[in-house]
Amino acid sequence: MPADRPRHASARKLAPGPGRLRQAVHHFPGRYTRPGTAPGDLTAPPGAGAFKPVLFLMDFDAQALVEKTDCSLEEARQYFDSPNATWLHVQGMPDAGLVQAIGKAFDLHLLAMEDVMHTGQRAKIEAYEEQLFAIVSTPDIAAGEIAVAQLSLFLGDNWIISFFSGESDPFKAVRERARVDSSRIRKSGVDFLFYSLIDTAVDSIFPLMEDLGERIEGLELTVFDDPSREALDEIHQLKRELVLLRRLLWPQRDMLNSLIRDDHRQITSGTRLYLRDCYDHCVHALDLVESYREMASSLLEVYLSSLSNRMNDIMKVLTIIATVFIPLSFITGVYGMNFDRTASPWNMPELGMRYGYPLLMFFMLAVVVLMLVFFRRKRWI
Amino acid sequence: MPADRPRHASARKLAPGPGRLRQAVHHFPGRYTRPGTAPGDLTAPPGAGAFKPVLFLMDFDAQALVEKTDCSLEEARQYFDSPNATWLHVQGMPDAGLVQAIGKAFDLHLLAMEDVMHTGQRAKIEAYEEQLFAIVSTPDIAAGEIAVAQLSLFLGDNWIISFFSGESDPFKAVRERARVDSSRIRKSGVDFLFYSLIDTAVDSIFPLMEDLGERIEGLELTVFDDPSREALDEIHQLKRELVLLRRLLWPQRDMLNSLIRDDHRQITSGTRLYLRDCYDHCVHALDLVESYREMASSLLEVYLSSLSNRMNDIMKVLTIIATVFIPLSFITGVYGMNFDRTASPWNMPELGMRYGYPLLMFFMLAVVVLMLVFFRRKRWI
Amino acid sequence: MPADRPRHASARKLAPGPGRLRQAVHHFPGRYTRPGTAPGDLTAPPGAGAFKPVLFLMDFDAQALVEKTDCSLEEARQYFDSPNATWLHVQGMPDAGLVQAIGKAFDLHLLAMEDVMHTGQRAKIEAYEEQLFAIVSTPDIAAGEIAVAQLSLFLGDNWIISFFSGESDPFKAVRERARVDSSRIRKSGVDFLFYSLIDTAVDSIFPLMEDLGERIEGLELTVFDDPSREALDEIHQLKRELVLLRRLLWPQRDMLNSLIRDDHRQITSGTRLYLRDCYDHCVHALDLVESYREMASSLLEVYLSSLSNRMNDIMKVLTIIATVFIPLSFITGVYGMNFDRTASPWNMPELGMRYGYPLLMFFMLAVVVLMLVFFRRKRWI
Amino acid sequence: MPADRPRHASARKLAPGPGRLRQAVHHFPGRYTRPGTAPGDLTAPPGAGAFKPVLFLMDFDAQALVEKTDCSLEEARQYFDSPNATWLHVQGMPDAGLVQAIGKAFDLHLLAMEDVMHTGQRAKIEAYEEQLFAIVSTPDIAAGEIAVAQLSLFLGDNWIISFFSGESDPFKAVRERARVDSSRIRKSGVDFLFYSLIDTAVDSIFPLMEDLGERIEGLELTVFDDPSREALDEIHQLKRELVLLRRLLWPQRDMLNSLIRDDHRQITSGTRLYLRDCYDHCVHALDLVESYREMASSLLEVYLSSLSNRMNDIMKVLTIIATVFIPLSFITGVYGMNFDRTASPWNMPELGMRYGYPLLMFFMLAVVVLMLVFFRRKRWI
Amino acid sequence: MPADRPRHASARKLAPGPGRLRQAVHHFPGRYTRPGTAPGDLTAPPGAGAFKPVLFLMDFDAQALVEKTDCSLEEARQYFDSPNATWLHVQGMPDAGLVQAIGKAFDLHLLAMEDVMHTGQRAKIEAYEEQLFAIVSTPDIAAGEIAVAQLSLFLGDNWIISFFSGESDPFKAVRERARVDSSRIRKSGVDFLFYSLIDTAVDSIFPLMEDLGERIEGLELTVFDDPSREALDEIHQLKRELVLLRRLLWPQRDMLNSLIRDDHRQITSGTRLYLRDCYDHCVHALDLVESYREMASSLLEVYLSSLSNRMNDIMKVLTIIATVFIPLSFITGVYGMNFDRTASPWNMPELGMRYGYPLLMFFMLAVVVLMLVFFRRKRWI
Repeated sequence: MPADRPRHASARKLAPGPGRLRQAVHHFPGRYTRPGTAPGDLTAPPGAGAFKPVLFLMDFDAQALVEKTDCSLEEARQYFDSPNATWLHVQGMPDAGLVQAIGKAFDLHLLAMEDVMHTGQRAKIEAYEEQLFAIVSTPDIAAGEIAVAQLSLFLGDNWIISFFSGESDPFKAVRERARVDSSRIRKSGVDFLFYSLIDTAVDSIFPLMEDLGERIEGLELTVFDDPSREALDEIHQLKRELVLLRRLLWPQRDMLNSLIRDDHRQITSGTRLYLRDCYDHCVHALDLVESYREMASSLLEVYLSSLSNRMNDIMKVLTIIATVFIPLSFITGVYGMNFDRTASPWNMPELGMRYGYPLLMFFMLAVVVLMLVFFRRKRWI
Repeated sequence: MPADRPRHASARKLAPGPGRLRQAVHHFPGRYTRPGTAPGDLTAPPGAGAFKPVLFLMDFDAQALVEKTDCSLEEARQYFDSPNATWLHVQGMPDAGLVQAIGKAFDLHLLAMEDVMHTGQRAKIEAYEEQLFAIVSTPDIAAGEIAVAQLSLFLGDNWIISFFSGESDPFKAVRERARVDSSRIRKSGVDFLFYSLIDTAVDSIFPLMEDLGERIEGLELTVFDDPSREALDEIHQLKRELVLLRRLLWPQRDMLNSLIRDDHRQITSGTRLYLRDCYDHCVHALDLVESYREMASSLLEVYLSSLSNRMNDIMKVLTIIATVFIPLSFITGVYGMNFDRTASPWNMPELGMRYGYPLLMFFMLAVVVLMLVFFRRKRWI
Repeated sequence: MPADRPRHASARKLAPGPGRLRQAVHHFPGRYTRPGTAPGDLTAPPGAGAFKPVLFLMDFDAQALVEKTDCSLEEARQYFDSPNATWLHVQGMPDAGLVQAIGKAFDLHLLAMEDVMHTGQRAKIEAYEEQLFAIVSTPDIAAGEIAVAQLSLFLGDNWIISFFSGESDPFKAVRERARVDSSRIRKSGVDFLFYSLIDTAVDSIFPLMEDLGERIEGLELTVFDDPSREALDEIHQLKRELVLLRRLLWPQRDMLNSLIRDDHRQITSGTRLYLRDCYDHCVHALDLVESYREMASSLLEVYLSSLSNRMNDIMKVLTIIATVFIPLSFITGVYGMNFDRTASPWNMPELGMRYGYPLLMFFMLAVVVLMLVFFRRKRWI
Repeated sequence: MPADRPRHASARKLAPGPGRLRQAVHHFPGRYTRPGTAPGDLTAPPGAGAFKPVLFLMDFDAQALVEKTDCSLEEARQYFDSPNATWLHVQGMPDAGLVQAIGKAFDLHLLAMEDVMHTGQRAKIEAYEEQLFAIVSTPDIAAGEIAVAQLSLFLGDNWIISFFSGESDPFKAVRERARVDSSRIRKSGVDFLFYSLIDTAVDSIFPLMEDLGERIEGLELTVFDDPSREALDEIHQLKRELVLLRRLLWPQRDMLNSLIRDDHRQITSGTRLYLRDCYDHCVHALDLVESYREMASSLLEVYLSSLSNRMNDIMKVLTIIATVFIPLSFITGVYGMNFDRTASPWNMPELGMRYGYPLLMFFMLAVVVLMLVFFRRKRWI
Repeated sequence: MPADRPRHASARKLAPGPGRLRQAVHHFPGRYTRPGTAPGDLTAPPGAGAFKPVLFLMDFDAQALVEKTDCSLEEARQYFDSPNATWLHVQGMPDAGLVQAIGKAFDLHLLAMEDVMHTGQRAKIEAYEEQLFAIVSTPDIAAGEIAVAQLSLFLGDNWIISFFSGESDPFKAVRERARVDSSRIRKSGVDFLFYSLIDTAVDSIFPLMEDLGERIEGLELTVFDDPSREALDEIHQLKRELVLLRRLLWPQRDMLNSLIRDDHRQITSGTRLYLRDCYDHCVHALDLVESYREMASSLLEVYLSSLSNRMNDIMKVLTIIATVFIPLSFITGVYGMNFDRTASPWNMPELGMRYGYPLLMFFMLAVVVLMLVFFRRKRWI
């Protein structure tokens, strides 16, 4: 593998619009530990730490709120022993040192920390003794490009630690809501915050779905009339994005399903109702992906049919031209022969006839008319 | 996304007949909350409140019936405390204010109200503590066009609140039946009315299915003989409608299944028997959709085969013409050369022969006959 | 929808042999109640009562047998109170009045009666309190044509009421067996008769399957050598019949499975053993249908490949002819030019050479030979 | 259906090698009872008793062994009452009389006897009160041809009765092993013999699988370079054999699975371990069949692509020839016109120019060169 | 089958890069016991013992470690009775004698030993009374070629015996980790070592997956512009490798799933957590394989579409050339006819006109322009 290929999550681009075709989408999601290395390996994969991660802290109950941006790990640690709900959010790709430090400070499971480090994991829920660990993959829209980012969540009894590997910050809206006193996030326990983060990650698929829907509609208008190579390219691009989205959504669905079904101590039944709503959204997105896939397949068939249609049209024209003129050319060829009329009366006496030329012209016209009648009957013209 | 695109349910058109191809069908069902917004968001999606919603009220037992059309919410509220069965039906797209008011007045769950507001949801059944909440999607035939509308139902102990987002009113027939004293609806509890509304919504798929069946039959007659571009267009249209219908029916089937299987306090075992019948109808429609999908795929294959067949026919004609005349033209070309017969006796002596011309003509005829025999043997003509 | 289209089951024709292609097969099975009508609607669908239904009655124990053909409903009613087993069979499409009368006389469930009336239902088993109600769809061979008919069965404690909507009477053989004293039907209870009727209906798929198998084998011989339009038509016809058969057999399989699995009071464990055999037959038929479907798909691919092969052959001939003669024609064209040899010694001196003509002829021959060598190397000839 | 078609199992041939294409493979497995006949019908199907069946008997414990070849039924009957294990094997297609006699003598269930008689059944396991009845289908290699044969097994407390409908005798090896004193078969109970017979039948699929694998590999080498009609034929043949094998193996897998899972009195837990191994073999064969099916599909796609490639090559040559020579021919045509140069100085003065002919030749050469450059740029040559 | 074909696992090559196409990949995995042979047959399959197997021994607790390379079986036997954890690893294809000796020495089940001997088995887990027996298939990269090798594992109470049939030794890294005092492998029981070996085998799929991903990306760039035969070959190669990988991974997934789910005495709950991580890796690889399969299918469609596109381009050029020049050639043919202008004033008077030639030239130019306008409007140029 070439060394210069970036191996981090943002390498998996999703073309956001028709204008951005054939860009470098990598099928292999990137990071894996070398076979034989010990589990819980935290050596930094290439691309990690490319942009400095930022730590946000919120410590709150319904009335009071402490908020710290870009706080240090030591600062954060203090709030975790308070009876209030505490949320530590790490935005961006942390380096191995930070991840290890956080893991140690909050006693998180080694395997979970490995998954945080090596983004590009399937969505999953893992119940460790003291924590619930969840991974959700989500499209990350930043700088006009779309990549796949990973949200990793640890849910304790009264705290949440979240990691988001993307460049954009879709959780600003959640923080905003948490700043309002007596808002549901503030009143409910951390499990509602846990839900809110997952919900935000799950819902960020929808603007993408809408864009895909519009691209399909656009293609439907083009492909019938103009089966160009760009259209083929765009259909293929669409298909690979849908394959990617499907690979992203199926584990998400399973993860949400097991979150609803299984009885996790940390999640109240009230929040479970909200998670069910979140599950519905995910299934809805999957339904759309499946529909889109079928439409993309259908589009390709239409594309191929249009090509065939076009070929037919071309062939028809060629055949009509050839069929009309080849016999005529033969006739003119006959009377272009140089048989010696003076040597024998059998040699091309037509050439000396008084109305030979006009009669021949008339004959050729008749041939053309007959041909055209024949084509009409064959419904070629 | 262009701002002028209507974002409400009726935008998803289903072409009702062959005459209405390639109309604006949007693949993305439309409404979704922005990622990160709080659950239970009731801000009006674009297109909501486009036509004024109407409230119908029925309060009845087997003998007595009170009916109010276009009643106010306050009027409606009074009847809900009576021991009689009460049915409040909201026809049309209500605005956020009305939905909120209803939700507050009857103590309906916030998430359910959000689903009522943002139509285009998957069919589902949700058991809240005091109410059963159901969503069924149904084709809505109004003004000659077909769109997808959503029926949202709340079933309480002795009341039903229903919302229907479509323009047409398929529940007129149900009201009619409810007006007859001692009819089954009047005698049975509200759960039978609940069933009746769902049954009506489920059954409204059948006229559509019948229409689709006829269009497929029509295509089967055309496609063999005349694989035109219109036929291709129509097949693709068919496919996308079937994809849509399938997306609509699968959740409906799941929802009805869970309604039968699970033990909901509000539904008596007598009504469950009727719901099983309704489930059968839904499965029947799904069977048809799957069959139609296969027929549509088969049609496309036939279309492509017909195109190929046609191309073959054209190629055959071209080949026969070319194969017959090109050699003949060559021969006439030979005798059209101007080799100087006077300069050498080796130069084209045939031109001076007494029967040169007739013999050549005869030779060319022989070539044609041989060619045609060859084609016959190849079974091209 | 045109009013003159017959809407009853026999409209769904199955072409029994290759000679009967492209007949009117309707994809939509036909009858449905208008959305919003009350359940248990018995208004006659179009086509009902087209031919007068006949009632057969058998009342028997192991030793004694009373048999009545074309008996009246009142006559039949009397035998039902006897301790003997009683079988009432209604052959043909009954009108609404008769169905209603039978339903009332024997206290059958309204929803079941509706299913009897509106044939074209999916196979199913429905356990009402006092009766077991079963529907099996079966091909109905009458007057050389094959349609889909519905067998509806009510099984009580010591009686059976059966309706068969087809024109033919496949149950003659069962009656014949029942006439033999001490035959298994006579000795066992009504549940064995119930099994016998279902078994007869299930097994009547096999002659059809055999016919389909032969048609596929026939096509396999034709399609390789002669990819004609008739073959395409026949393959498509095959596919649609297989789609129909599959839609017919899957519910049948589910129905038989639930009949074996569930514990119905009316069915003894001895009979369950026989029903398991019947289930095996149904699964066997389904296996065949799936195999046939794959073979039909494979046939279509072979068809398309054969078409392409054929096109290739044609193109080869065209190309060889054109490639050989077009250059030759050009050469003759050159020496047909009228450059004035008298005006300049540079103008076509070849025309005056002594061996110009024979040399040219030899040159052209050499060109042809070279071309043919080239084609051989390309393996085109 | 023609009367002279053999209707027995051996009619379903599997082509063992590429040299034996397009032989008479019948899709319909053959035997079925007419709809309406009583269950347990033992009338001989056509083809039964075609070759005389032979009875083998073995009565053994770990030390002693009595073996009889071609013994009579009466002889066999005596050994069944001994405490030793007894194995009666019927090799070949027995006639109805023999089957009935065996059924009576050993008190076997009527439905099972019908399945023995009508070979071509799906593999299954059926637990009757006193016996376990198993059917396994297996390829039967005899006289260089491969057909499908049926092994039917009855397992009692200390006896086995087995029927094998094929011509070859794959169970010779089992008898051989049973002749060795203190071999596992002799030491273990009859259930181990039961396993050994099933294992032999299941494993006989593997030589076939190997042959299929080699045929696919052979095709992979041919199809790329030479997409001939024979290759198409062979691919289709392959596909139909794989469809057949799949239909054969799936029920086998289900049957073995239920044999392991369910608790049958006659089978010890030690033997169950061996049956699990046998199940693994069956699943392995199924895996291979599925892989082969995909490879066959891929081969067909490659075949079609190769055809298209070939067509492209041909078209390219045609186009190059035509594109080069048609314009040249036109030019020669122009100077072959007979405009009267004496009548007007405007009429074709080029013909009288001193270097007219050489210049024209040079011009035509230039045209050819330009064309070739154009083609190169289009990457056609 | 030719005798010289190697029948061992390394025969199933996986092409590691685009440069190594169409090498000898055998679809049939190779080894099977002849039908009818006794279970537990250990006769050496062809290819066994090709390279001498090496035995590694490790006997350890957290503090102490004894390590022996290439030790004899007798040496090894001694360590197994110690309370320490003991790991015996057999690297390479052992001959029948050695396998039998090991089986006897450690009392391993006969069926398991057969599976060790006949590599190419599906991954599985088998719980014998005293041991847990696991098989995992893994790609074996040695000498630049990739083959499929089998890891067979026996897990006892405090010992592991492992066989690896490949040439390379992926377990070096595990031994390295085990040499570190107080490493997790040394501290945890043998079940953690068991996990480590399986994890190493499972993870060795990832470098392959990455390579496949890159090849697909490479193809995506080529296929659009240059649908060459090599690309087709490569796509087919890709597909067969993916079919193989899928056949390898599915049983692996099932095996890991049952290892997690079932309650095996030998595996502690701590290790089960790690196995769950291993299962996640396997599912992730499967997800990728499925995605790749879809991409490969899509690539083939793109390939075919590109071919069609190319054909269209060629046809267009041919048609334009032919359509422009064939009529022109006809015109020149007309004026090349030798009608005798002296014999009649009707015969081709145009030839004697003063501006005949220039006018004709102009007319022909006009025809060309008209044609080109026509083509523009048809959007062919």
